Amino acid sequence: MIQIEGKQLIGFTDHAEGAKTLRSTNASTGDKLQYTFSKATRDEVALACEKAGTAFQTYRKKTGIEKAYFLETIAMEIEELGEQLIDICSQETALPKTRIESERNRTKNQLLMFASMLREGSWLDARIETADPLRKPLPKPDMRYLHVGLGPVVVFGASNFPLAFSVAGGDTASALAAGCPVVFKAHSAHPATSELVAKAILSAAKQTQMPDGVFSLLHGDGNVVGMQLVKHSQIKAVGLTGSFAAGKALFDAAAQREHPIPVYAEMGSTNPVFVLPGALRKNPEELAKGFAASVTLGVGQFCTNPGMMLYRKDTSSEIFLQNLKAAFENTSGGAMLTDGIFNAYTTGIARHQAIDQIDVLAQGKRTGENNSAHPMLFKTTSHVLSDHPDLAEEIFGPTSILVEMQTKDEMLSAARNLSGHLTATIHGTEEDLLAHEDLLDILTQKVGRIIINGFPTGVEVCSAMVHGGPFPATTDGRSTSVGTASIFRFTRAVSFQNMPQQMLPAELKDENPLAIWRLINGVRTKEAIK
Amino acid sequence: MIQIEGKQLIGFTDHAEGAKTLRSTNASTGDKLQYTFSKATRDEVALACEKAGTAFQTYRKKTGIEKAYFLETIAMEIEELGEQLIDICSQETALPKTRIESERNRTKNQLLMFASMLREGSWLDARIETADPLRKPLPKPDMRYLHVGLGPVVVFGASNFPLAFSVAGGDTASALAAGCPVVFKAHSAHPATSELVAKAILSAAKQTQMPDGVFSLLHGDGNVVGMQLVKHSQIKAVGLTGSFAAGKALFDAAAQREHPIPVYAEMGSTNPVFVLPGALRKNPEELAKGFAASVTLGVGQFCTNPGMMLYRKDTSSEIFLQNLKAAFENTSGGAMLTDGIFNAYTTGIARHQAIDQIDVLAQGKRTGENNSAHPMLFKTTSHVLSDHPDLAEEIFGPTSILVEMQTKDEMLSAARNLSGHLTATIHGTEEDLLAHEDLLDILTQKVGRIIINGFPTGVEVCSAMVHGGPFPATTDGRSTSVGTASIFRFTRAVSFQNMPQQMLPAELKDENPLAIWRLINGVRTKEAIK
Repeated sequence: MIQIEGKQLIGFTDHAEGAKTLRSTNASTGDKLQYTFSKATRDEVALACEKAGTAFQTYRKKTGIEKAYFLETIAMEIEELGEQLIDICSQETALPKTRIESERNRTKNQLLMFASMLREGSWLDARIETADPLRKPLPKPDMRYLHVGLGPVVVFGASNFPLAFSVAGGDTASALAAGCPVVFKAHSAHPATSELVAKAILSAAKQTQMPDGVFSLLHGDGNVVGMQLVKHSQIKAVGLTGSFAAGKALFDAAAQREHPIPVYAEMGSTNPVFVLPGALRKNPEELAKGFAASVTLGVGQFCTNPGMMLYRKDTSSEIFLQNLKAAFENTSGGAMLTDGIFNAYTTGIARHQAIDQIDVLAQGKRTGENNSAHPMLFKTTSHVLSDHPDLAEEIFGPTSILVEMQTKDEMLSAARNLSGHLTATIHGTEEDLLAHEDLLDILTQKVGRIIINGFPTGVEVCSAMVHGGPFPATTDGRSTSVGTASIFRFTRAVSFQNMPQQMLPAELKDENPLAIWRLINGVRTKEAIK
Repeated sequence: MIQIEGKQLIGFTDHAEGAKTLRSTNASTGDKLQYTFSKATRDEVALACEKAGTAFQTYRKKTGIEKAYFLETIAMEIEELGEQLIDICSQETALPKTRIESERNRTKNQLLMFASMLREGSWLDARIETADPLRKPLPKPDMRYLHVGLGPVVVFGASNFPLAFSVAGGDTASALAAGCPVVFKAHSAHPATSELVAKAILSAAKQTQMPDGVFSLLHGDGNVVGMQLVKHSQIKAVGLTGSFAAGKALFDAAAQREHPIPVYAEMGSTNPVFVLPGALRKNPEELAKGFAASVTLGVGQFCTNPGMMLYRKDTSSEIFLQNLKAAFENTSGGAMLTDGIFNAYTTGIARHQAIDQIDVLAQGKRTGENNSAHPMLFKTTSHVLSDHPDLAEEIFGPTSILVEMQTKDEMLSAARNLSGHLTATIHGTEEDLLAHEDLLDILTQKVGRIIINGFPTGVEVCSAMVHGGPFPATTDGRSTSVGTASIFRFTRAVSFQNMPQQMLPAELKDENPLAIWRLINGVRTKEAIK
């Protein structure tokens, strides 16, 4: 058993100068747990950033294989935390142990995915243009290009994924893979979980000879510790999964720095689901069950929760609604992650209920825990959506709103009025889909991921995932925070002109010692240059 | 001969509601030319943006081959402008006709480079993860990923490259290649040149059936028309090569929009050149001549002009300085591009001269044109640089400052104190270079391109170029504005989950009809999926 000490873990040393005023909470009961945490002082924040800056000078030179070994060792150390991690995480978040276990697997798999990418080595997009000293009118120089890490990255933990989007989650894994040290601001909803995972990372760092400062964990308030981190000159990028307010505040602060830095904030979305007439007729029961399950999965606490469904009123839509009512009434709520999330959910629900033209179609079952969310399914019409565009804003929790459309044009118009979202889903028969290519075309411009005949919850961690989307879904619609492409949030390309072979990084040497894919004079190849 | 009409070219229609108060100037004489231009009104600016938004809905669906044909036709139409383009451009900029001719070649080659990339098709990074319905605990969905254009892009013309970084320059070519319509704000230093090239683009657009609004040209003030463009809701990204003040103002305006958008401003840099002892001893004459030529090439009006040289004082440095003095005194100035650039040059030179510890090592020859810059080579010591860090800021024009160092440590310290630049250069023998790997390591963190034993002027347009660098060299250190990778400034990735084959873009269909490179389940291949 690891003792929870409640300190800042700044590289390989512990610090606790600040007041021990943070308490860990049992989210299911609302009771305080025995763990107390010190808030990072200004000096401690600065120390973590300075150490990260120093560590970058060593860490950036580690080979892909060395970094892969570090990530693999983190995965192993997380496994070693065993039941203690599952127990504490479940207490702090009210998430069931089975969910925590599967999230632990995902966290480990993310680390291993990046490790595997680093071992293979082609990810850094090596490009070579060989010299042509005889070219007219000017000789062509030898140019070689690859990606390097930006520098120390600040990552903020997400409340809703205490492992997979937290201390050793996707942002940390991709930043470390890119060659960037990480200063991690723990989420106050799971500080003990954070400490356990941070200790696993630091143990792995020591075992694999990574530099002091390659990782630090800090506790404190986002608008104090978080803002200080984002403004520190050593910090070169920021990763966050959180609310619009938090993400936008960090984006603004980063843009106003003397030297602005990129902020990758994934701020959630409503993830609209469009149901086309054929799909609605074909299998109303399955569709209704799938939708009700997606809305209420994990007490609706997913960024990709489908918060809005748009469908066409016709002879079969009544049957579909009956099925949906029955399916939804069969769902259950449960304890939410934090008081703040529960209060925001309650406020959001009340906002819908205050509008006359919004009906309650169905309610899920109440449960007795602390902060237990009551699943709510609302229904309205396209005119009400037009009059209240804020209905398309996310309410984080087990709720969704059905919007009934009279015509295809109304549906297209609603699609055009959407702002940026992470996902959009279309349910349709083959015939439906072919008749709605215009809808697909509009939605492709609004989101990072289009789902056909499925549900948006469940984000596959792989090379082809985009978990991102145009503003306000994220602060940088060109990025993804899930999948292998997420590494490019924390890199930039550098090119070397006429550099002697012996000084080139291995990835760019003529003989291609790592046997990676490279673009040589515009042709993709694994061949060496002779 | 094409008549210069001085209107806004908004898609396929001309507009001239604003006052005709812009005059084209003969830069060599300062005389006004016969061409007058109307400044775009607010309504005209809005119309260009709205037309670009509408055009995007068609243009984004054009195939790679259709877009390639458009770009190739633009190159042909520019060639068709013949001597009229060379004459007018040379008058407006005071650049010699041979330089304009080679810049026209570069402009055409850039268009053809992107056309070739579009015809080949692999650039959009297609990624496919095939489904595994039997995977436990959850089935794996079919995920397919590719890059799409962001939407309409505003591009600002650069004064110093009236063709290659102007109307049909690299920013326009890469945005059009990405599938983004372009609204172009002409630089007031070469409005007639801009009109000619814009007409070539619009003629190509008509010939190749591109939509009305795929390209527009506007005249006016940067802080009026430019700001309105950057704030327009239809605009999704901005490209600029210009001053720090202009780039930073646009960056701030874009970050403060309700929906922030990326700004890629290349704002120039001092491009430090480090000369190591062996190189200085080995061939002082050649090095001196090469440096003097690079500083004064094109009256020093290049973003990559080497504005600072750092070297170690030793027994051979005096010989090198004598060579440099002789070589520099043999250089000539010439007419600068605009009054504003000449005045800024004069002010910058006066700022150096006002500091006691900065000496004039050499002066180039004066010439008699309007706004003729006098080449100036200054010399100082590392202590003065430490006391006046603004000496490392760019003075745009034919000048540079030599900084004499006593020790290697002083040189490393000066390197560490650099902010972001486009390039850094090291001159060294093989022995020198191996003894200065620490210097190379520092510089790699400060710039987009490292040059060994060469000079930074001359930016090869190819797949392996990075013409970018950390702030303040650019507003987005992750990007390049030259080379094929510049297209990714104007794209984002989208993924499709479980999309039926017939609705997928050709690049993502199983059979790989375009025979492009794809990443399938993590493996790079041109194979079809069976």
